[in-house]
Amino acid sequence: MSKTPSNPKGTRDFLPSNLSKRNYIIDIIKKNFLSFGFLQIETPALERNSTLSGKYGNEGDKLIFKILNSGDKIKKANFSAIKKNNFLEFTNSISEKGLRYDLTVPLARFVAQHQNELIFPFKRFQIQNVWRADRPQHGRFQEFTQCDADIIGTNSIFQEIELIKLYDTIFSELGFNDIIFKINHRKILNAFANYVGFGNKLTDFISILDKTDKIGVNSVINELNKISDSKSVSKLSSLLAKENITIEKLKILFNASDNGKRGIEDINTILNFISKNNCIKNKIQFDLTLARGLNYYTGTILEVNLNSNSSIGSLGGGGRYDDLTSFFNLKNMSGVGISFGLDRIFMQMELQGLFPKYLNHNFDIIVINFGITYLEKLYPIINKLRNAGKKIDIYPDKVKLNKQFSYANKHNVNYAIIMGEDEYKKEEVIIKNMKSGSQSNYSIKKINPELF
Amino acid sequence: MSKTPSNPKGTRDFLPSNLSKRNYIIDIIKKNFLSFGFLQIETPALERNSTLSGKYGNEGDKLIFKILNSGDKIKKANFSAIKKNNFLEFTNSISEKGLRYDLTVPLARFVAQHQNELIFPFKRFQIQNVWRADRPQHGRFQEFTQCDADIIGTNSIFQEIELIKLYDTIFSELGFNDIIFKINHRKILNAFANYVGFGNKLTDFISILDKTDKIGVNSVINELNKISDSKSVSKLSSLLAKENITIEKLKILFNASDNGKRGIEDINTILNFISKNNCIKNKIQFDLTLARGLNYYTGTILEVNLNSNSSIGSLGGGGRYDDLTSFFNLKNMSGVGISFGLDRIFMQMELQGLFPKYLNHNFDIIVINFGITYLEKLYPIINKLRNAGKKIDIYPDKVKLNKQFSYANKHNVNYAIIMGEDEYKKEEVIIKNMKSGSQSNYSIKKINPELF
Repeated sequence: MSKTPSNPKGTRDFLPSNLSKRNYIIDIIKKNFLSFGFLQIETPALERNSTLSGKYGNEGDKLIFKILNSGDKIKKANFSAIKKNNFLEFTNSISEKGLRYDLTVPLARFVAQHQNELIFPFKRFQIQNVWRADRPQHGRFQEFTQCDADIIGTNSIFQEIELIKLYDTIFSELGFNDIIFKINHRKILNAFANYVGFGNKLTDFISILDKTDKIGVNSVINELNKISDSKSVSKLSSLLAKENITIEKLKILFNASDNGKRGIEDINTILNFISKNNCIKNKIQFDLTLARGLNYYTGTILEVNLNSNSSIGSLGGGGRYDDLTSFFNLKNMSGVGISFGLDRIFMQMELQGLFPKYLNHNFDIIVINFGITYLEKLYPIINKLRNAGKKIDIYPDKVKLNKQFSYANKHNVNYAIIMGEDEYKKEEVIIKNMKSGSQSNYSIKKINPELF
Repeated sequence: MSKTPSNPKGTRDFLPSNLSKRNYIIDIIKKNFLSFGFLQIETPALERNSTLSGKYGNEGDKLIFKILNSGDKIKKANFSAIKKNNFLEFTNSISEKGLRYDLTVPLARFVAQHQNELIFPFKRFQIQNVWRADRPQHGRFQEFTQCDADIIGTNSIFQEIELIKLYDTIFSELGFNDIIFKINHRKILNAFANYVGFGNKLTDFISILDKTDKIGVNSVINELNKISDSKSVSKLSSLLAKENITIEKLKILFNASDNGKRGIEDINTILNFISKNNCIKNKIQFDLTLARGLNYYTGTILEVNLNSNSSIGSLGGGGRYDDLTSFFNLKNMSGVGISFGLDRIFMQMELQGLFPKYLNHNFDIIVINFGITYLEKLYPIINKLRNAGKKIDIYPDKVKLNKQFSYANKHNVNYAIIMGEDEYKKEEVIIKNMKSGSQSNYSIKKINPELF
């Protein structure tokens, strides 16, 4: 093996500097999930193919990574299937398991399987990796982390309010102050589709509308006209001209639609609550063009964008689904959830300089190594400082000082503890500030965490 | 789909109560890794088959989960190979990637690949899942978590001391006070094998010796006699009779062996340092029968056991390896590392009742739901308490009180915040202690985190 080894295309190694920033984000998300009463679960990376297949549409199904059966089981490979170009049948003959494609289907499986062990309504969060056999390209990975919070088993519209507040709390703590939450409702979209004559082509209507952010209102209207002989182009245009649509206007237009009224009532409840008490720090806005591609949403839908630059795509999204667990024979389990786009959030925080400076220090203190006799004398104070929460690296070898200091500087360490021959005799150490270069001698007995 | 769905055999769903305990362990391990100056990395679950294969021996290779190539690539399936029962060739024709089998080979790949971006000596830790196609059985899983800390790029024996101290700190903080660290050295084992006449059968000697804990000294001697016509049975017996072997005695016996002397010097350095200053809280003991199965160890080897019950197997282990990255063409990178057996640690902590009681509370406070008008008035104080770090769940729906209290009790909540019609009018809330049943009224303005 003469080539330098590498990780597979579309996957990533995380080096310490990047990982500590990712963990900073995840820790803040997790802390707030917990403070809002969500409980953490984890599901295995491996799921049965029967659990995964048929849940993500034809395109999604093709992107599931399949695990080859091990041992003798691969003898059962169905050759005739592949000769007939029936890849699926061939695959099924040699694979029983696949890698988790998202956290939503495993959640539905989990809730159905463990329904008798769970306390309902069930508020869970989950932060785990998922895998997709997408063609690797810039910003799209085959392995990435999803962070989801969901409430299962209640219709209460107050959950949407809690989730928006949770979003707002987390994005504020991460340092964002330019977030806009866009909100819409699948029932409003249904009424909308009926009103403009697309009621019988709802799925197409939603999937085209979902592109508004990317291709603009005019292109959306063009595409919609292509799939319908609707006479309602003017209705459509006037509704999609963003500045004109208010929830009040829709209330009059959709007056005859039960769907429309119910959706509008939900959105009003949410916006009314949130507008009181300065409930959130960022902006929230009803957006009739917000559609969200996923086909399991049935109620409120929600997306997180940068107010000043929506072209980077959403930093998170979510919505209500009435029937997710029915895939697994568990009916009447309305749920609502949100998700965080960790990689996009990371990129934006880098761009905006939102990561705290302390993350650049790999540890707090370096102990310069003069040999094991010196370390024996230093070890009790090192233990004391570590117990007080200081991160301390002892340089591994007794080597030249400049090599040790260069290592310390590469790690961007703030302080060095130095005990040479003189200090050893006097029971002292030097504490050197690695930034200013200043240093002072202290008796070993006087060393305490507050000096650093 | 009429059957209840399930996770694949050999994998686990983690429900909140178990996961919070697992995370308690992992958080303590991680905190101490950081305080000892280790930096975290993560590698992808997917590795190239060329990275994984040939590293784990024949048996290990068979246990690697292979990923099926996606899309048209499976057309290249080599049928003739499987007809010839050449499973490996068939597998290679339809798979390029596999799932991470441990964290050690990916570390070696990572260090070789990123050598120019890393700061050496490189102290890294890694806490990630690994996958093995073992036959599922009690206590053995196909997906489990490894926690490893390693120092790469130094021969310094002081690293062994730091790793033992790290082990001691972590196991003490987890609540164990009955740990014994067993220590040995591959160079001592080499000298030992030569001394008793097994020098030309070193691998067999080590793998049989490694079973001492399981089958006992007498069976080990029997098995060793089977593979050698050695005349040194008495030498072997007297050395393996545990009470007789001290490091001082070995020093005399192995006086002619450079290997032996070097190994004994290392062990002495470690034990001498640790015996001073009450360096560790648990016990440490030289153990000539400790062998550790893995074939990449070349120096110190180390294992963590319960002193009172070694039959449960080790809670962790590690050792020094001189040449791990040479798999990937990077020479002279001596490393040393330790690993934590998370599942065994978990089991022992459950048995010994070492998990803190607060982990039984899913959250701190439940807010009883009297409807959205009440929640509007309560929301500012809920935010205040959440910001102060309290975990608060608001019951999702406005339903009967006994249903809400039953939910709270199932979650083992300490306090309930109640605002009914009377309290609403008086701008008050009731704080009810869910354990004692006692309750008091407070003005909304007086609510602060110290009340809970």
